[in-house]
Amino acid sequence: MATSQFRVTGMTCGHCEASVREEVGEIAGVVQVDVSATTGRLVVTSTKPLDEAAVLTAVEEAGYEAVPA
Amino acid sequence: MATSQFRVTGMTCGHCEASVREEVGEIAGVVQVDVSATTGRLVVTSTKPLDEAAVLTAVEEAGYEAVPA
Repeated sequence: MATSQFRVTGMTCGHCEASVREEVGEIAGVVQVDVSATTGRLVVTSTKPLDEAAVLTAVEEAGYEAVPA
Repeated sequence: MATSQFRVTGMTCGHCEASVREEVGEIAGVVQVDVSATTGRLVVTSTKPLDEAAVLTAVEEAGYEAVPA
């Protein structure tokens, strides 16, 4: 398993977390997505190391901005 | 047409507004729901005067609190 961490800005509530979780969860190989609107922390667990750009794009599709952390 | 106004607390974003809109929109006779997370204002337009309690319950089901305004 691999984990990668990001900082996400713009989330305000559990619905926002769910949007990020849904989009990031669609990336091939992702098995777990931990995300907190309170801290802005996003931790993605995957079966193999992820392409960071794919995660950043997924977060953008959810309507937020992410940077690697 | 009748309109009734409420103050809703706890909404933080567009997802929250959508949740309220969806629940309140299911009440019989409701034709329009205007809701703002920024102002907390909820205006419900309906074909006949609404039972306030039904609106308060719908907002609670969405996960927020409302009072008549």
